[in-house]
Amino acid sequence: MENKLSTQPYKGARDFYPEDMATRNYIFNVWKKVCESFCFEEYDFPILEPFEIFSAKSGEELVNQQIFSFEDKAGRKLAIRPELTPGTVRMIAQKFKEIQKPIKWFMIGNNWRFEKPQLGRGREFFQLEVNTFGVSGVLADLEIISIIVEIMKDFGADEKMFEVCISDRRLIFALLNDALGLNEETSNKARKIMDKRQKLSKDEFSELLKEIDLEDNKIEIIEQFMDSNLDNLEKVLDKNVLKENKGYETIKNLFSYLDNSGLLKYCRFDPSIIRGFDYSDGLVYEVFDKNPNNKRSMFGGERFDKLINIFGDFELPATGFAMGDITLLEFLKGWNLLPKMDSKTEFLVTVWPSDESKYLTASLKTANKLRSAGKNAEIWLETDSKLDKQLKYADKKQIPYCLILGEKELDSGTVTIKDMKANEQKTMSLNDLI
Amino acid sequence: MENKLSTQPYKGARDFYPEDMATRNYIFNVWKKVCESFCFEEYDFPILEPFEIFSAKSGEELVNQQIFSFEDKAGRKLAIRPELTPGTVRMIAQKFKEIQKPIKWFMIGNNWRFEKPQLGRGREFFQLEVNTFGVSGVLADLEIISIIVEIMKDFGADEKMFEVCISDRRLIFALLNDALGLNEETSNKARKIMDKRQKLSKDEFSELLKEIDLEDNKIEIIEQFMDSNLDNLEKVLDKNVLKENKGYETIKNLFSYLDNSGLLKYCRFDPSIIRGFDYSDGLVYEVFDKNPNNKRSMFGGERFDKLINIFGDFELPATGFAMGDITLLEFLKGWNLLPKMDSKTEFLVTVWPSDESKYLTASLKTANKLRSAGKNAEIWLETDSKLDKQLKYADKKQIPYCLILGEKELDSGTVTIKDMKANEQKTMSLNDLI
Repeated sequence: MENKLSTQPYKGARDFYPEDMATRNYIFNVWKKVCESFCFEEYDFPILEPFEIFSAKSGEELVNQQIFSFEDKAGRKLAIRPELTPGTVRMIAQKFKEIQKPIKWFMIGNNWRFEKPQLGRGREFFQLEVNTFGVSGVLADLEIISIIVEIMKDFGADEKMFEVCISDRRLIFALLNDALGLNEETSNKARKIMDKRQKLSKDEFSELLKEIDLEDNKIEIIEQFMDSNLDNLEKVLDKNVLKENKGYETIKNLFSYLDNSGLLKYCRFDPSIIRGFDYSDGLVYEVFDKNPNNKRSMFGGERFDKLINIFGDFELPATGFAMGDITLLEFLKGWNLLPKMDSKTEFLVTVWPSDESKYLTASLKTANKLRSAGKNAEIWLETDSKLDKQLKYADKKQIPYCLILGEKELDSGTVTIKDMKANEQKTMSLNDLI
Repeated sequence: MENKLSTQPYKGARDFYPEDMATRNYIFNVWKKVCESFCFEEYDFPILEPFEIFSAKSGEELVNQQIFSFEDKAGRKLAIRPELTPGTVRMIAQKFKEIQKPIKWFMIGNNWRFEKPQLGRGREFFQLEVNTFGVSGVLADLEIISIIVEIMKDFGADEKMFEVCISDRRLIFALLNDALGLNEETSNKARKIMDKRQKLSKDEFSELLKEIDLEDNKIEIIEQFMDSNLDNLEKVLDKNVLKENKGYETIKNLFSYLDNSGLLKYCRFDPSIIRGFDYSDGLVYEVFDKNPNNKRSMFGGERFDKLINIFGDFELPATGFAMGDITLLEFLKGWNLLPKMDSKTEFLVTVWPSDESKYLTASLKTANKLRSAGKNAEIWLETDSKLDKQLKYADKKQIPYCLILGEKELDSGTVTIKDMKANEQKTMSLNDLI
């Protein structure tokens, strides 16, 4: 006997059987519907990209440890995309002059990262990527946050279930560079440690900051900063530092707009939000699942006005977010928000068991007429199966109606329709049925 | 100045700007709608697969020259899928016992092949894959061919534009093994040469067959066979050979069903159809573009009852086809069947240029109300742009209606709607508008 191959998918990647695919389609359809209601346009680009567009700015961990990369047969170094933002910006740089601004774009695409598979993480995941390019004002960020809230509401979530936590990278600079006087290198290291605080104890957090030579009083100020809110931030950071700070101004404007638009109940200023991407350079935000059993950041977004400069000397403000399907699915399951997916099949057209071809012909024609009328109709694919077997199949597949075309029906030009749930049947003309 | 990165996508792969994406969505939506009307269920699986599932049966050229393969960081040999059939069969083998038969499945997915980019071919292409598993009878093949015809008709194509050419691999065996008495090796080589005949002159074709030591009289019979039709096939192949041949019986049954179902005008028996996959083992068919400027095979399908045996000793008849997006797009363009894609944006809600926040607030609320009513409404993202600039933007983006909310409208609780095409405007209440 020859060796048989494994039937498992590649580790950390998912097969989507029809029931899983129905759920995925449900999620993608909500994403798409909300983005289109805000008049964002859909686009896409290849999963294989030149390696350099990620090595430039995506951040060390992603590029060195997680990216799937290889050389093609012509020796070109390629990466399977680990995120969607650099490719998006590449497309815009390519047609920078032709594309009408502002640019409001969304895409749904898969990414690959070499990670240890665990709950809420896989090596392949899908993301919705939503960005506005060409608007420097905070109205663009307001719109992006409105889209996030609308998507969550469309899934049935409310303010008890999720929260958009918002800060600004320029406040971090105000803290680390202006207030604490750290040099660029130490400041970058401190920022990366701050980004991990959620996963650390208070002691572990202090310990890591001590390792980069921060004194106790500076660590104390960092802690105070991360715990502050919009009212007491001025007690932590010097008023003069804040007065000059564009980040502080942006945050204040944004929160006044959020209040005006009725979105304040979904949002909170949270200076502990940092984000890992090197290209974040202004507003940053993360959306949290408030489920007490599993409180965690689900996804986020940011300003990235300068990322496009890896492709050329363009001026193009940019802001947006990406949300992944795996964490979202955990969220929806955790709050019991996932609707039951019904069978899309409306009718099973049975085939009367007989050697006479007229029965098959009548069933084929009936199925075609139903489809022409916009109905989803399945036909039985054998001419010698007992009717009982066909009805049992419909029952197992939860098909709501079966049509029966036997001698009586053919003679009178009718069909018998059996309601599988009510277990009732009626005979009528096909036109009446449609 | 630092070096700037290229903005081009990887060679042979496509960026989908919103206008291209609209076309792609149009194609995918037709595919999906027709498959669902036949009650086929959608599924999906990862683009990365263990390399072996392709090396087993996909055919030499595909595996040795065209596949993108590499090792992951754990030393596992992976392939980016070059076709969708082996992964589909892997999924079915994985849950063989649990899945209710017959299985009617479709998916839309991308594949990668390392090819020289040319018209109608790219390194990345999308395919619709449609299969029925668990039905050995020809009714399953009839249904698959019905789906092909319905899809083509839904795109607006008719019998003057395309043709489904059908044969059976078992007829090729009857010719090469039974009638000509070739051994297995020579027979396989001859079959592969026959598969290329379309691209060769008569002389080149004979020459290649001579190279594998076929005598002139045998080459003559092969030529006659490939030119034969359902009426004169019995003159080329011995009646006794044909009488025992399952392929001949299948073809005759299928054509009688096609006739009954009104599909005969789209179909033709054509014994020159061979197909390249090693796993084809019964009916084979290819769909041709009949465009005199570009007559060629667009896509095809086959029986592949034994492919599942690379995963285990399963009994599972299988039949189906895959159609690619690039060749289809060429077809639709060639026959001028591609509809114009309209803007999905219905309204641009302008923002009256003013320092007073009431104008922005009113516009934001109006946009939200339109969206709640199921309309796609875009809002202008600046508070200091002249109205003229906003209207020009709408004009360039072909947005049909602009809403204006100035002092007069705010005072009277109305909106002014401007029909951009007719260049007319009217003032009314928002509720009346909705």
